[in-house]
Amino acid sequence: MIPRRLAAEFLGTLFLLTTVVGSGIMAEQLSGGNTAIALLCNALATGAILVVLILMFRPISGAHFNPAVTLAFLLRGDINISLASLYWLTQVAAGLTGVFLAHGMFELDVFQLSQQARTGAGQWLAEIVATFGLVATIFAVLKARAEAVALAVGLYITAAYWFTASTSFANPAVTIARAFTDTFTGILLEHVPYFVGAEIIGAVLATYTLGWLLNAD
Amino acid sequence: MIPRRLAAEFLGTLFLLTTVVGSGIMAEQLSGGNTAIALLCNALATGAILVVLILMFRPISGAHFNPAVTLAFLLRGDINISLASLYWLTQVAAGLTGVFLAHGMFELDVFQLSQQARTGAGQWLAEIVATFGLVATIFAVLKARAEAVALAVGLYITAAYWFTASTSFANPAVTIARAFTDTFTGILLEHVPYFVGAEIIGAVLATYTLGWLLNAD
Amino acid sequence: MIPRRLAAEFLGTLFLLTTVVGSGIMAEQLSGGNTAIALLCNALATGAILVVLILMFRPISGAHFNPAVTLAFLLRGDINISLASLYWLTQVAAGLTGVFLAHGMFELDVFQLSQQARTGAGQWLAEIVATFGLVATIFAVLKARAEAVALAVGLYITAAYWFTASTSFANPAVTIARAFTDTFTGILLEHVPYFVGAEIIGAVLATYTLGWLLNAD
Amino acid sequence: MIPRRLAAEFLGTLFLLTTVVGSGIMAEQLSGGNTAIALLCNALATGAILVVLILMFRPISGAHFNPAVTLAFLLRGDINISLASLYWLTQVAAGLTGVFLAHGMFELDVFQLSQQARTGAGQWLAEIVATFGLVATIFAVLKARAEAVALAVGLYITAAYWFTASTSFANPAVTIARAFTDTFTGILLEHVPYFVGAEIIGAVLATYTLGWLLNAD
Repeated sequence: MIPRRLAAEFLGTLFLLTTVVGSGIMAEQLSGGNTAIALLCNALATGAILVVLILMFRPISGAHFNPAVTLAFLLRGDINISLASLYWLTQVAAGLTGVFLAHGMFELDVFQLSQQARTGAGQWLAEIVATFGLVATIFAVLKARAEAVALAVGLYITAAYWFTASTSFANPAVTIARAFTDTFTGILLEHVPYFVGAEIIGAVLATYTLGWLLNAD
Repeated sequence: MIPRRLAAEFLGTLFLLTTVVGSGIMAEQLSGGNTAIALLCNALATGAILVVLILMFRPISGAHFNPAVTLAFLLRGDINISLASLYWLTQVAAGLTGVFLAHGMFELDVFQLSQQARTGAGQWLAEIVATFGLVATIFAVLKARAEAVALAVGLYITAAYWFTASTSFANPAVTIARAFTDTFTGILLEHVPYFVGAEIIGAVLATYTLGWLLNAD
Repeated sequence: MIPRRLAAEFLGTLFLLTTVVGSGIMAEQLSGGNTAIALLCNALATGAILVVLILMFRPISGAHFNPAVTLAFLLRGDINISLASLYWLTQVAAGLTGVFLAHGMFELDVFQLSQQARTGAGQWLAEIVATFGLVATIFAVLKARAEAVALAVGLYITAAYWFTASTSFANPAVTIARAFTDTFTGILLEHVPYFVGAEIIGAVLATYTLGWLLNAD
Repeated sequence: MIPRRLAAEFLGTLFLLTTVVGSGIMAEQLSGGNTAIALLCNALATGAILVVLILMFRPISGAHFNPAVTLAFLLRGDINISLASLYWLTQVAAGLTGVFLAHGMFELDVFQLSQQARTGAGQWLAEIVATFGLVATIFAVLKARAEAVALAVGLYITAAYWFTASTSFANPAVTIARAFTDTFTGILLEHVPYFVGAEIIGAVLATYTLGWLLNAD
């Protein structure tokens, strides 16, 4: 079953990154400099594909597509460290592949490095909040009504594009992959570690907070 | 159980206000003065996060996040006055915290006072209508199909941003908190009491109207 | 039970018209002449409120809010002529009240007459298609998965705003009411009978087409 | 039952094309040259109508509306070659009829030929990716949660409008029909065969990939 699980994580994370980066390219090309419209199209496409991918792959791999989510499940004891490690590798590799695929479709250089600075305390706080909210959404909805988790995650990310100052990366595989696109959704490679650190903090905080909140005893 | 209920109300109302105010800031910054696009992004983010938060927290606290909704449940006898009072305090405190968090992420002054006038008979009528509709939605959908109430509330608020002249605050905790942001979604502090009064009127009217309408005897 | 049914039709049709007309006013005021954005906001608000209203009121009145839908149910034998007549009167009265309420919230003259021509063969064909599709949606989804009918109708109307040349009135009570607003969503009173005629044709065609298509014998 | 199945495929594919082409015309006319807004309205209308049409017609015909989807079901052995052939003919005829109907509603020449080039390796790769993703969505969600397939397909196409360089035709009947409209959504007739070829490749790849991935043995 492990090859199928990893294949599901690979396909899901690949399509997620192709959507984030591809829709960003399309939106920027068409919006004529109106960044609000570009971000709106980017957010709607990302939210929509997340609902689809989680519906598709949750029975196979759990549909993490996100090392911070895998970490949260590891902390809860829902996945062991060796499988979690394979998920992490798969997610990062798939994220990069998804970016390359987006570049290929739009006939851009496959390999790029972003020039876009995304840094500062506000951005890092935003990534903590974004990832806290994402992990909290997953854990709370899995308990309250598991079949709604796909819809909840898609809507959460659509909203979080707008309510966080960072447009809510909330995913280390997404963050790393977006360093390799010099388009609308890119991030300077040297700013990646701070984002990833903030995402880990948010995921850990949410795991323990929700662990208490959802414990009905 | 009361600490967990209040924690759920706190987290939910906090994320609601962070979304309302944060997405308003982001939308205003990016939209280059096109207010329709800014309000569209603000409305979509708010509606989406409401679906998520109600899915997450309804089994724990009922997912009110709104003193007018708590009042309506009190009038129906679904919550007692002492717990309702704790909900009200929690909602207002969480709303303010949510605004401060939004300011923090966007690196604005944490403490602000709005300069935006929102007053007049049309605005007050709009708040009566908006809150009437919100409470009616909750009571009718809870009876007709309780598992759809999260979706119904999110879609109702998305629509009500547009069909009410006030953009549908419909929530005293939201109204109070929005007095403390001098950004897109703010309201002048001295105009808050009239909004809150209108919201209470709307909630009371809806409670009695729906009480009759949903009584199948 | 009849007073409660009529009250449900009244409240539902009133909120439908308040949303159509109110969101049109708001969208036109904010969009600075960009009609595509105005129609987008108008369409999203209308689709969203339809999902909500049908979720709320289907167990009480069937949630028609539309004389053409009531006619289709009459042709199928699901409602008798005397109750159907009461529905029609209620829907038209509620539609007008909804327009007046929208005007009141936006502090416009309560009584207005539209100056906007909406006429010609393309428009009439569009209303036939729009109403055919609406009635077909209702009958097919009621049979295939009744609990999804609210979502289906909301999404259908959101789409039909865009794919029909008339922006899809598809509802005689809506059409009549919109003659009494000189805002974004208005229609010249003398053009109303042709729209209503086209809507009736579409509803009748759909009733018989779907009657055959859904008959599994 | 075959006449009813074909009638369902006909009505569904007709409304799909009327929506794609009609909403493209409306969006282009209203958006004043802002292509991002035009594509957003086009994408939302298409995604919404797909949810509706699949909800309506899945119990009758399977709701393919797409020769590539019919091919995928043929490869899986879910439909025989003679019925599949009838589906293909019906889908192409319905697609053309849908385009003519859209032109009729907007009072344009019924018969048109597109002038819009859509060609090159990036576009063809995009159609492979788009159709792979569509067929994968259908097969995975049918297995994981069949009642969610309508929502999943609608959201997938909404996203794919944005993340593929071709705006995701992903459907040979749609591609052929769009050669016959010289409006926003058209494609030069001589570029159609390459799109159709890419769509077939994507559908075949997805059928075998998902055949392995979803096989739980």
